[in-house]
Amino acid sequence: MRLEAIRYSPGSLQILDQLQLPEHCHYETLSSVQQAREAIRAMKVRGAPAIALVGCLSLAVELQAGAGGPGLAALVAFVRDQLSLLVAARPTAVNMARAARDLTHMAAREAELEGATEETVRERVIRFAEDMLEKDLKDNRSIGDLGARHLLEQTNPRGGKVTVLTHCNTGALATAGYGTALGVIRSLHEMGRLEHTFCTETRPYNQGARLTAFELVYEKIPATLITDSMAAAAMVHQGVSAVVVGADRVVANGDTANKIGTYQLAIVAKHHGIPFYVAAPSSSCDLRLETGKEIVIEERPSQELTDLNGVRIAAQANDVPRLPALVAPPLPAFGGTWRRDNASSRRRNLKARRRRRSGAVGRGKAVESSLPRRRALCSSKS
Amino acid sequence: MRLEAIRYSPGSLQILDQLQLPEHCHYETLSSVQQAREAIRAMKVRGAPAIALVGCLSLAVELQAGAGGPGLAALVAFVRDQLSLLVAARPTAVNMARAARDLTHMAAREAELEGATEETVRERVIRFAEDMLEKDLKDNRSIGDLGARHLLEQTNPRGGKVTVLTHCNTGALATAGYGTALGVIRSLHEMGRLEHTFCTETRPYNQGARLTAFELVYEKIPATLITDSMAAAAMVHQGVSAVVVGADRVVANGDTANKIGTYQLAIVAKHHGIPFYVAAPSSSCDLRLETGKEIVIEERPSQELTDLNGVRIAAQANDVPRLPALVAPPLPAFGGTWRRDNASSRRRNLKARRRRRSGAVGRGKAVESSLPRRRALCSSKS
Repeated sequence: MRLEAIRYSPGSLQILDQLQLPEHCHYETLSSVQQAREAIRAMKVRGAPAIALVGCLSLAVELQAGAGGPGLAALVAFVRDQLSLLVAARPTAVNMARAARDLTHMAAREAELEGATEETVRERVIRFAEDMLEKDLKDNRSIGDLGARHLLEQTNPRGGKVTVLTHCNTGALATAGYGTALGVIRSLHEMGRLEHTFCTETRPYNQGARLTAFELVYEKIPATLITDSMAAAAMVHQGVSAVVVGADRVVANGDTANKIGTYQLAIVAKHHGIPFYVAAPSSSCDLRLETGKEIVIEERPSQELTDLNGVRIAAQANDVPRLPALVAPPLPAFGGTWRRDNASSRRRNLKARRRRRSGAVGRGKAVESSLPRRRALCSSKS
Repeated sequence: MRLEAIRYSPGSLQILDQLQLPEHCHYETLSSVQQAREAIRAMKVRGAPAIALVGCLSLAVELQAGAGGPGLAALVAFVRDQLSLLVAARPTAVNMARAARDLTHMAAREAELEGATEETVRERVIRFAEDMLEKDLKDNRSIGDLGARHLLEQTNPRGGKVTVLTHCNTGALATAGYGTALGVIRSLHEMGRLEHTFCTETRPYNQGARLTAFELVYEKIPATLITDSMAAAAMVHQGVSAVVVGADRVVANGDTANKIGTYQLAIVAKHHGIPFYVAAPSSSCDLRLETGKEIVIEERPSQELTDLNGVRIAAQANDVPRLPALVAPPLPAFGGTWRRDNASSRRRNLKARRRRRSGAVGRGKAVESSLPRRRALCSSKS
């Protein structure tokens, strides 16, 4: 049985509380946008695609229960305001912001149609959220399959198995199911072409140790958990064929924001000549921003580094010297270039590929400059 | 007041139990080699220089209480056997093995001198251990001062402050006092030339978060604790001037064994053009080994990654897929070249420098090959 992070049926939304994993598989019911917002902030649900899905579905549940209105204008305003609240919960991931924009526009457009009623607009907004869920699952499956085939072609064209290293959690728990980077690993495993997986612990919040390891165990995929600091040693001694990670956001020049440590992983992969891939849906691409410098990087509380389950695990700072945790420093982007596209035509190609494909994985090759040029890859799909 | 990891007076040895830090400053009395061995294995005391000191001083305490003998031959055999037990406790660090070899030879030689008695040999062995303690403190002070001056000359010759990133714990808690890599940082701070320190958490055993952060706070040195995965981001955004780490062992070709993550740090430092230094006493140099491949790398239990204070923090592996922790993979060495010596004359120069200097810091520059040539630096001193 597949792991479900999100359980939805019309009027009902439940999420698997990821803070309680791996000890407990507890599903929490969300009946409102406010509850969804709190769950997103507390990281009971995380992963850029899952955040957007839970946000929009919580609005669908509220609308199903009759919230918003009365009247068309009030309903449209309600939809817009609720979505704004959701966007602010975790700003780095673009998917929620993109979904909010699209859904707000759609509601406004629908309200202007001839014969529009509060009920038709309400139905359309609910349907939009439900379609997102279905599309995400289908897209992930495509990303996984296309990514696996591409990775095999590039690293092992004559057959045989590959060993993949991944960071953070990008699996069923971060999406509607299946996963992006972990989807590629899942597909490789289903094809019988996966030798082994290395998943990093992913400090400070241990998404790798708690969630990715949990998913790998759940799906019986051969895997080894390593600390973030063991990646280079694993590359040298354990025959890592490729690194595959997800993305919070990919902007027009290819700069990618992802979990802290992604940039560092890209550097060590480059040093060892190991290909580095970012697997992400087009909803993670944000072509409005030119470079990664424009991405708002979320800062998380320092307790995520210094405490674990409420217990202090680092030295106390007392009052004199400062010992703040640098939890979300401003460069999760990593150096890279498009595999098939040259830099100048990257944006054009990205758009072309969006029309052409329904799911893909980009490949990164770190660039030479000592201050890294902040380019990277996203998948491109319609 | 300086932090003391080891409290010794003739016939009495106490160590600061580092497992209880940072919560409790508890000193444990060690009255025998057996107790010292258990403390070393359990990592109540750690750091290559401190392990050797505690091992030899525990033997001194046992001898002071009358152990060994009766008779010269039995005493010499006792010294040899007890030291062998200590060497096996943690094999990667060379200092204990070197001290055991020297002390065993010295005891055998002393026993052959004319007029040698059980008492004179006993006294000489005790004195040897006591001299080690005194010498280690003096050497660290030299490493710190020479290292700080060298680092400033290289990174900031025209004055101004520097920001240093360090890994694991190499401070007063890992040595007789003051520290090696952390000694350099301490000296920079005393000179008024330290802008800031970044210390890595150092998973899986958190020596950075528990011990280095504790020492930095204790000594009021400006510092920020970061996860191991934040090093590259700190280099890009926080103006890191240099990386300074310690060493478990440095062999003839310069290969260095040190805490997991050291190699990865060297790669990212190289990528950003940031100088990388290893600060270690000559007792950490092992010229009997030609390359790092000959170094026995300690493997630690996987619980150090998956559990914290006895609480499981990673997914359970159940019985089907394996999820072992790769705690001590076989490449803690890092790529590097001698700063002043070329590769072919490295060994000759190392010996020359050992005659010439009483404490120094080597500088590493990672090399270009994609599979890293495993060279590095140690300090060289008499």
